[in-house]
Amino acid sequence: MAFPVRACALIGRFTDPRVAESVGVLLPHLKASCAAVLVIDNGDLPDWLNGNVVKLPEDAIAERADLVIAIGGDGTLLYAARLVARHGVPLLGINRGRLGFLTDVMPQDMMDSIDAALAGKLEREERTLLRATLRAPDGSVIESLALNDVVLQKSATGRMLDFEVIVNGRYVNSHAGDGLVIATATGSTAYALSCGGPIIEPQLDVLVLAPICPHTLSDRPVVVSARSVIEIRLIERFETAGQVVCDGVVIGDLAPDQPLEVRAAQERITLLHPPGHDYYRLLRSKLQWGRGGRDHSR
Amino acid sequence: MAFPVRACALIGRFTDPRVAESVGVLLPHLKASCAAVLVIDNGDLPDWLNGNVVKLPEDAIAERADLVIAIGGDGTLLYAARLVARHGVPLLGINRGRLGFLTDVMPQDMMDSIDAALAGKLEREERTLLRATLRAPDGSVIESLALNDVVLQKSATGRMLDFEVIVNGRYVNSHAGDGLVIATATGSTAYALSCGGPIIEPQLDVLVLAPICPHTLSDRPVVVSARSVIEIRLIERFETAGQVVCDGVVIGDLAPDQPLEVRAAQERITLLHPPGHDYYRLLRSKLQWGRGGRDHSR
Amino acid sequence: MAFPVRACALIGRFTDPRVAESVGVLLPHLKASCAAVLVIDNGDLPDWLNGNVVKLPEDAIAERADLVIAIGGDGTLLYAARLVARHGVPLLGINRGRLGFLTDVMPQDMMDSIDAALAGKLEREERTLLRATLRAPDGSVIESLALNDVVLQKSATGRMLDFEVIVNGRYVNSHAGDGLVIATATGSTAYALSCGGPIIEPQLDVLVLAPICPHTLSDRPVVVSARSVIEIRLIERFETAGQVVCDGVVIGDLAPDQPLEVRAAQERITLLHPPGHDYYRLLRSKLQWGRGGRDHSR
Amino acid sequence: MAFPVRACALIGRFTDPRVAESVGVLLPHLKASCAAVLVIDNGDLPDWLNGNVVKLPEDAIAERADLVIAIGGDGTLLYAARLVARHGVPLLGINRGRLGFLTDVMPQDMMDSIDAALAGKLEREERTLLRATLRAPDGSVIESLALNDVVLQKSATGRMLDFEVIVNGRYVNSHAGDGLVIATATGSTAYALSCGGPIIEPQLDVLVLAPICPHTLSDRPVVVSARSVIEIRLIERFETAGQVVCDGVVIGDLAPDQPLEVRAAQERITLLHPPGHDYYRLLRSKLQWGRGGRDHSR
Repeated sequence: MAFPVRACALIGRFTDPRVAESVGVLLPHLKASCAAVLVIDNGDLPDWLNGNVVKLPEDAIAERADLVIAIGGDGTLLYAARLVARHGVPLLGINRGRLGFLTDVMPQDMMDSIDAALAGKLEREERTLLRATLRAPDGSVIESLALNDVVLQKSATGRMLDFEVIVNGRYVNSHAGDGLVIATATGSTAYALSCGGPIIEPQLDVLVLAPICPHTLSDRPVVVSARSVIEIRLIERFETAGQVVCDGVVIGDLAPDQPLEVRAAQERITLLHPPGHDYYRLLRSKLQWGRGGRDHSR
Repeated sequence: MAFPVRACALIGRFTDPRVAESVGVLLPHLKASCAAVLVIDNGDLPDWLNGNVVKLPEDAIAERADLVIAIGGDGTLLYAARLVARHGVPLLGINRGRLGFLTDVMPQDMMDSIDAALAGKLEREERTLLRATLRAPDGSVIESLALNDVVLQKSATGRMLDFEVIVNGRYVNSHAGDGLVIATATGSTAYALSCGGPIIEPQLDVLVLAPICPHTLSDRPVVVSARSVIEIRLIERFETAGQVVCDGVVIGDLAPDQPLEVRAAQERITLLHPPGHDYYRLLRSKLQWGRGGRDHSR
Repeated sequence: MAFPVRACALIGRFTDPRVAESVGVLLPHLKASCAAVLVIDNGDLPDWLNGNVVKLPEDAIAERADLVIAIGGDGTLLYAARLVARHGVPLLGINRGRLGFLTDVMPQDMMDSIDAALAGKLEREERTLLRATLRAPDGSVIESLALNDVVLQKSATGRMLDFEVIVNGRYVNSHAGDGLVIATATGSTAYALSCGGPIIEPQLDVLVLAPICPHTLSDRPVVVSARSVIEIRLIERFETAGQVVCDGVVIGDLAPDQPLEVRAAQERITLLHPPGHDYYRLLRSKLQWGRGGRDHSR
Repeated sequence: MAFPVRACALIGRFTDPRVAESVGVLLPHLKASCAAVLVIDNGDLPDWLNGNVVKLPEDAIAERADLVIAIGGDGTLLYAARLVARHGVPLLGINRGRLGFLTDVMPQDMMDSIDAALAGKLEREERTLLRATLRAPDGSVIESLALNDVVLQKSATGRMLDFEVIVNGRYVNSHAGDGLVIATATGSTAYALSCGGPIIEPQLDVLVLAPICPHTLSDRPVVVSARSVIEIRLIERFETAGQVVCDGVVIGDLAPDQPLEVRAAQERITLLHPPGHDYYRLLRSKLQWGRGGRDHSR
């Protein structure tokens, strides 16, 4: 993070009233502290933003910014993560009301956190990104980064997928089911958790491969090194089709003759956290641990 | 339920301050409405109860009462259920603060519910009880009723149990693991749920057999008719021992040469519910459905 | 089943060599015993079948047949089930090699089972069918029967669905996730099992509602009466779309303003089983219970 | 491993006929290759062993041996692992018939593997051990090593345990349930797997904390660094008692006022594997992946 912070980017759905409210509070403060406040020029900016901010194309924003502030839910931060990945710009996530796993600054703590960020006083934490590589039918290569997960899922029909998983060139298993989630430690609390995967401490250098609704009941999540190269090969079957999704965004279809390759990206993300940030407190809050109590007997 | 309600029994841990507080409010009201308020003479009654109530031995209380009020958590109601089972006396469960699956009257609604119960205006719901039959090493027969569940669990050592399940004389499966929960629909939200069993609507005439931490991953909960006769045979192994637990109370050890038999009891329990009682609202509240939201992305 | 069996229908993928082999053995035998052997005229019949069979359109076959024999996997039997549902014709399922839950006659037992079926000596078992009703955007009504399950699943994108479940007019829960499986007892060992649902004895008059990869971890399968009317309402969200699948066949999209209704159909299916048919033996075989053993310690 | 191998220890239940058979074949071969064949003098040695072997007390065997051969199931190897841990002697596990996760040499490959071991040609793999430390009521300290897992489990009664987990001095969660499995990567396929934990590649330096039948459905397995210090504190409740089990052996009770501490031991185990050893092939075999097929439809 370059100091002092000259240019600071704001990323969010400004048409969402809760986001707009936070930005309305934040903007004068940022303008007073930084030389420029940047936003993405996506043709959908509300009038009240015009004149107050510098509008840039999506792919230019991370190059110019010294700090990126994502305001919204975790989806907004995932989007911002892909933008900044190649540029090493730190990311701060501010949620609009309810705690997210990634947007872990509450609205009431926003101003303090922003000031701390501008003063370089927040905790920096690096997170692994995945790179998914897929070859399209026309031979072109599709690549995408993902902070949470790369997902193979069935598409179009109600039929199961059959596919093989190869890790570091070694055959692991043939799966039949709705697909597979390949999640980072960061993404272990997202889709992979719904598929029966474990919670993984975010700093651990491991991935989890969690089958989605597998046909075989012993087909369970596997934790592998984040330095693994993972290959997924679709087995051709009547009326099945699979697509690849990175952090919730479809990047393409998986053809039976072209494997999907997933490995840790060279790029990493730097998240900023409030001082005293406690991952387990976040978990307890998000998973409602400790509430609901045990007033019913067993 | 005999009308008018002449004798009304109060069951609870009167030494628990929250229970005492509720009883303190309730007692004058009950004394004004009923000829007698009965409690169990367990030698542990606080002074302030003396003189105000009729003390009876544990096994005489259900014979005399026209209505039994359990105050506390679900454990108190399970205890009360076994007392009243042979006598058909209706049961009303009042919780001390947090909703239970069985004690579903909140403290603030207590007086209204009691009045409605005394006036015969509560909804009556019958629930199935299980009867567990076990033969002790000396040949004597141990029998117990259970409203939630009959559990075979390992005891004394850290070793797995091996056992066979036979339903209606037909061999079902051999299990290796920590044991088996045989739950009524009522008990499906108790221990069986922690073992991966489904939630079962309470009026359904089915049971669930949920293996506890089974060694084989395809060893999954099975839903069977409540009219089934279930037999569990322990397979003798070095350093393993199994015990049988009914609604949380150990009733005896299971010897390899003597099967445990479980079937629906002829006795049934009548629960009283406030008008407009909604099982799904209870579920939503207890399981925190709908809270925690989806502010993190997938 | 009309006796004697005059017309017998054969249903299967005759282009599959294993199916062709079984049909080749079976055909002379059937022709000797029945007045007519019927097949569906789907334009894809191999030459060797011509002349030996009566070809009928798909929707006429069940009207003419006294017995329907499905040869293949469970998918073939599910297809046959929808054809015969309105006509009460009994169904016999012969598998091509490996046991299915529905095609439970092994190839080596085929001839004996066919003879027993023609002599009316097989065990008849009725199974519940579901009827799914969906209103298309143009106002037309789409209806479909299902022997295993009616599934709401996300389509087209990687985004979760949000939807509400209402049972008998009573709100149960709001779900966020990949969808919901509504399965009969028959279907409890199919997709619902992969979603964490229980195994349900096939003769029980209950359904299971199993959420697919639910976002909330306490969102667990619920067992309800098969006499329930189940309504699913999609909640509109950006970039989500849901489709409805009956026994693996997509029947249409679910619009946010039009609920999906699922209830037990008036029609029921009659399956024929070999004498001594044992559901639990089938389960043990399909789920590999008892194999794999416990040679590793815990 | 000292070369040449002078003293080689045999560990197993020699009274088990299958073990005896293997030892009968192996013994002449070992006596020809090594200066001494050592066994534990546990007072239970069969006659045919006498004269052929050197009998040593349990705690002296690892000091003298250059190679330890465990013959039997994984339980035998777990026992051997604790004996050799302080001495760095490599361990070779030979199973009696069915593959174990740890005893991964099949009987038919025994002689080749032994020869390769004596020639120093087997693959060596280091595995993490856990050290559990517990303070007894009299103040004395109980310590034990575990290769698979350290388990807190309820004992004596049917009641749930309440306990807190602290990792590196940071409070993680309060649990209510049957206990907790703290497993190494090695132990991830043992008890932890039955509790819903993931499979973890054995060389990863992580542990999994898997709650046993947790009361709260969102209380899921957590993967932490193997360099963590894990503390478990029992919360005192009426009629509950917890005991601590290392690799299946009870080491003591957990008192509410004395925490259990678990961390990676300084000692590590060296396992010997046949050349070309493939962990995933072992997994596929043990978990029956790929069998059972998908002949039933979804």
